[in-house]
Amino acid sequence: MATVPLLDYADMPAASQAVIDDIKATRNVDDVNNFWKALAHQPRTLKHTWESLKLVMGPSALDPLVKEMIYVAVSIANNCDYCIHSHTASAFNRGMTDAQYQDLLAVVGMASQTNALANALKVPVDNVFKK
Amino acid sequence: MATVPLLDYADMPAASQAVIDDIKATRNVDDVNNFWKALAHQPRTLKHTWESLKLVMGPSALDPLVKEMIYVAVSIANNCDYCIHSHTASAFNRGMTDAQYQDLLAVVGMASQTNALANALKVPVDNVFKK
Amino acid sequence: MATVPLLDYADMPAASQAVIDDIKATRNVDDVNNFWKALAHQPRTLKHTWESLKLVMGPSALDPLVKEMIYVAVSIANNCDYCIHSHTASAFNRGMTDAQYQDLLAVVGMASQTNALANALKVPVDNVFKK
Amino acid sequence: MATVPLLDYADMPAASQAVIDDIKATRNVDDVNNFWKALAHQPRTLKHTWESLKLVMGPSALDPLVKEMIYVAVSIANNCDYCIHSHTASAFNRGMTDAQYQDLLAVVGMASQTNALANALKVPVDNVFKK
Amino acid sequence: MATVPLLDYADMPAASQAVIDDIKATRNVDDVNNFWKALAHQPRTLKHTWESLKLVMGPSALDPLVKEMIYVAVSIANNCDYCIHSHTASAFNRGMTDAQYQDLLAVVGMASQTNALANALKVPVDNVFKK
Amino acid sequence: MATVPLLDYADMPAASQAVIDDIKATRNVDDVNNFWKALAHQPRTLKHTWESLKLVMGPSALDPLVKEMIYVAVSIANNCDYCIHSHTASAFNRGMTDAQYQDLLAVVGMASQTNALANALKVPVDNVFKK
Repeated sequence: MATVPLLDYADMPAASQAVIDDIKATRNVDDVNNFWKALAHQPRTLKHTWESLKLVMGPSALDPLVKEMIYVAVSIANNCDYCIHSHTASAFNRGMTDAQYQDLLAVVGMASQTNALANALKVPVDNVFKK
Repeated sequence: MATVPLLDYADMPAASQAVIDDIKATRNVDDVNNFWKALAHQPRTLKHTWESLKLVMGPSALDPLVKEMIYVAVSIANNCDYCIHSHTASAFNRGMTDAQYQDLLAVVGMASQTNALANALKVPVDNVFKK
Repeated sequence: MATVPLLDYADMPAASQAVIDDIKATRNVDDVNNFWKALAHQPRTLKHTWESLKLVMGPSALDPLVKEMIYVAVSIANNCDYCIHSHTASAFNRGMTDAQYQDLLAVVGMASQTNALANALKVPVDNVFKK
Repeated sequence: MATVPLLDYADMPAASQAVIDDIKATRNVDDVNNFWKALAHQPRTLKHTWESLKLVMGPSALDPLVKEMIYVAVSIANNCDYCIHSHTASAFNRGMTDAQYQDLLAVVGMASQTNALANALKVPVDNVFKK
Repeated sequence: MATVPLLDYADMPAASQAVIDDIKATRNVDDVNNFWKALAHQPRTLKHTWESLKLVMGPSALDPLVKEMIYVAVSIANNCDYCIHSHTASAFNRGMTDAQYQDLLAVVGMASQTNALANALKVPVDNVFKK
Repeated sequence: MATVPLLDYADMPAASQAVIDDIKATRNVDDVNNFWKALAHQPRTLKHTWESLKLVMGPSALDPLVKEMIYVAVSIANNCDYCIHSHTASAFNRGMTDAQYQDLLAVVGMASQTNALANALKVPVDNVFKK
């Protein structure tokens, strides 16, 4: 259950409707996901979050699928239920294969394990890694 | 300061020396990083960790640099000081450009923000994301 | 599903009933939330947790609403589903406005993003911040 | 040690210098903190992060000191060394008293404890908290 | 909802069936838990995870119940819903008493609180703790 | 660097000195660790934290060494630098063997890995684990 009601388009403030219109146009979809309907109570945060996301996930030096997989990895580490579901689905939509998903999970699991070990042992950083 | 002394090769148990030999041969290096010198007290964990890492980071469906960047992303989210330093360095060694590193950081930052927002609002997962 | 059954008042140990009585009296409510019904198996932890909470959230240098908002912020960062729901509701009960909630979320999101960036870059602490 | 060199103003790209100029003017300071010198390699992320921060921490429904204390609370929960130092210092600069800092820590500690207990017991959310 | 369908035995790749057979034989059970049915899409990760788990949780210097309680403690701190449920149940199956569970929760709660306080205050490590 | 100066005994408020006296007497030591010297600015939090810790870590259903190892495990998962150092040292002082420490680390590493995998796959909890 969300801590706020999900808003239908008709019930949103006009400033939020304008952002939702841009999400629909950019993504070429008829409706937006629940995340945006929850944020729509807050036009300023909605606008800022969408514009940041559009900028960060838009064309840049890294392949869009790679960025989506990095997004999934962070969402797993932060244990964001909603984000894991939405970005895993998005990665598959962008062409992630089952074998690539297997690899993604294996790296996330491995990193989580060695992160814990290195933190536990408080291993000092090698000089060669320092700038 | 590590919670255990870092071991020199000569002071390691033989079972650990064998693993260190394999790390050096696989990576074609003269010495291993501090992480392995800390784990060397524990031949079983050392061997298991190295063999897992070699398997996960070896040839597979995902590009080695992509896997390294995912490793960095998880290490940032888990805030592992040692791992952030070592895997960021490793990603640069594998050819990550400055622009790609900028993108990596931007995605990690963006994901951290929306992870917090979606967790805060307890947004219910859209049916379309469910399997 | 809880890992233990939620206890009805009649089924609680007497030592737990005494704590529940104090919660009801202090908060002027007829029944307590599920959190206390789960803790009621454990009179010692129940008593200790309630007395700590009463002390910390009672009259002190900070405004009660500010303390509640800080509680929400920590619960989001720790991703505690129950605590996010209960303390967000509690903050609204204490008079948090929608605009203040928008601000709270915006700060939590912003902090999460810059926390990730500063951890990623391992920025050294400026001398001016040190005591 | 940062994963990238901290940049002096003279060595920054022009697009970064412009952002740094705005930070100095907005905060009325002669120099910026290390965080910005690390981000200055990345004009796009620098500009986006600063503009977001300026927006979120600028005049709004919540008192600036309250926002700063929420920022500290999230940084503690995320264990960001740099951010804890810089935002704790900033909160003191904005007038946080020692007694308020004591309260802030007490709430963060209390929330961390009950977050762990509620997560451990997987307490179901009370209907009264649902929207 | 899982991000992948849970696989029935008949639908698993042969390499996964072999691992499932070993889990059933080792644990002397007729069916395996959902975790393994989700991993079964990925024979390599399934095999590696099971063999690691069998090794780590098998006979060693620490009592099996103690290892199970440590597993629960980490799962709580990482807030893994599935793992908290499965390993708490497993600890009870291995003979954990209600009083021991109360103690486990009390220690996890206490550690979470002092972890937050020590991180907040950035307390320097005493020389006596360094190796 | 701590966010507050560490206090010498002579500079502490009387209410803090009384707590420090009890710590010294209970632990039979001549001086207390830095954690207490940082908390000593805040007599109320100092007193509350010490009395909670004394209660939780004192005689109870679980062996003191087991409780100390659980404390270390949580501190690793929360990545508390100070707490990892102090409680690992404390566990060794209570008789933890090198082999037990190896086991502790192996369980923490394993749990971290499967926590990540179960969170990533969003595996639904088996009915048999529910109460």
